[in-house]
Amino acid sequence: MVILVHGGAGRVPEALREVVLEGVQRARDEGWRVLRQGGSAMDAVVAAVKVMEDDPVFNAGTGAALNRAGAAELDAAVMDGETLAFGGVAAVRDVKNPIELAREVMNSEHILLCGEGASAFARERGIPHHPPSLLVTEHALARWREVRKKGLKTSGTVGAVALDGQGRLAAATSTGGIVDKRVGRIGDTPLVGAGTYAEKGLGAASATGEGEFLARALVTYRSVSALRHQEPKDALFEALALAKALGGEGGIILVTADGRPVWHRTSPQMSFAFRSDDDEGAGLE
Amino acid sequence: MVILVHGGAGRVPEALREVVLEGVQRARDEGWRVLRQGGSAMDAVVAAVKVMEDDPVFNAGTGAALNRAGAAELDAAVMDGETLAFGGVAAVRDVKNPIELAREVMNSEHILLCGEGASAFARERGIPHHPPSLLVTEHALARWREVRKKGLKTSGTVGAVALDGQGRLAAATSTGGIVDKRVGRIGDTPLVGAGTYAEKGLGAASATGEGEFLARALVTYRSVSALRHQEPKDALFEALALAKALGGEGGIILVTADGRPVWHRTSPQMSFAFRSDDDEGAGLE
Repeated sequence: MVILVHGGAGRVPEALREVVLEGVQRARDEGWRVLRQGGSAMDAVVAAVKVMEDDPVFNAGTGAALNRAGAAELDAAVMDGETLAFGGVAAVRDVKNPIELAREVMNSEHILLCGEGASAFARERGIPHHPPSLLVTEHALARWREVRKKGLKTSGTVGAVALDGQGRLAAATSTGGIVDKRVGRIGDTPLVGAGTYAEKGLGAASATGEGEFLARALVTYRSVSALRHQEPKDALFEALALAKALGGEGGIILVTADGRPVWHRTSPQMSFAFRSDDDEGAGLE
Repeated sequence: MVILVHGGAGRVPEALREVVLEGVQRARDEGWRVLRQGGSAMDAVVAAVKVMEDDPVFNAGTGAALNRAGAAELDAAVMDGETLAFGGVAAVRDVKNPIELAREVMNSEHILLCGEGASAFARERGIPHHPPSLLVTEHALARWREVRKKGLKTSGTVGAVALDGQGRLAAATSTGGIVDKRVGRIGDTPLVGAGTYAEKGLGAASATGEGEFLARALVTYRSVSALRHQEPKDALFEALALAKALGGEGGIILVTADGRPVWHRTSPQMSFAFRSDDDEGAGLE
């Protein structure tokens, strides 16, 4: 069994370093607890991502980056490597844990729902309305004002990949996207093979970073399918090199079907934490 | 130079056979005219798709399939093989030609916009508001009522792929999606590598059919990247076989970097038309 999580690519201010490191470890521990209790890889990645959605320090769920209108619009997705089942939501404004809604979409006749349609589907599945203002933190507001003033673009995302005791693979990713993004912008996170991908016999991957470029390079599909003929590290290296050649930086976490946790980044930093039967670790480097 | 278009997978009623065949040929001719005048592959595929969006017999633009709320919600995307630039729109309700809006997105900082955010972006780029009721045809309404009564799901999409005189490749796809789909549903059409993909040196592809399954199998990316080591027909065959194993049928059109137009389907029928420097043809089979 293995769980590996990331708390996003991009530079973390020194003052937040400890909080971020503690956050990814809490998410990792929650995912590991689920695996230990016999939960599926899907249960574990959803549980781990939920911890980070609820932690205001991460760009997902509560504390997510704000769009051009000053609102949090959330993207999230899950993929089950066993069945290639996929579920995603995009530009959702009134759900506390979009990763849970993405899992509901996976269990519907569709793979991706956006905006108010996704909200209506949430109500149908018993996921309550969450007041949009509760997703907005002081920190996110301050960052949004700073980005608008300085014209910078910053991004971040959270994600988890896992291999469970029955050899099943799953991936989950959740984000508020790029600060000051256009209303209705969808990044790589909820797109199959872009921000999120898992396939049995190969691996499960979740990406973070400059989503437009990661999506055009289909970095998670490219990484996972390259495992047929490449070492995991090389697969991540090549996928991120292509995204970088297109103009964007980022990071990917991946767990192989034989249980190796691997990560790589072209962005300045990425936070991560992992645990397997015989090893554990965490970092922000 | 080559242009190849499709008017969607799925069975066409005998009464509409001639209209559909004539429609794909008009689209093909318009794309060819653009290529002949020195236009780019991107110019040609957008022009060809626009003809089919405006033709009420096809499930795209005017005459698109209606969602559960009885409204047309449109998805469209373009990809430029030369630069891997991608632009898509999803769940747009008030634009006459979503393929033109998708091209505008390609020329923005984002790759995909949905819903009202996409509409706001359209206004910013000078694409006027198109009354949603004008997208709804009597035929689409009748089909929607029939599908709701009988519980069938039907789908269709239009698309075009081209190779221009300078060796550039492009793909474009546009759709109303599945009849009676949930509000906010996004299918394969506007997702990179799912419904639409192009990459220089390899090929350009556009898919149609049961989008949820085509997307999970990433059929266009899979087909195009397989050209490195497979014959085009085999590449399409394998991609569609995977989608079928997951549960969905469809069709793909593809043009190779050396100018071969190729198509394949697992759905009952697919309409298509093509023209190259030394050949032309059309069919609904």
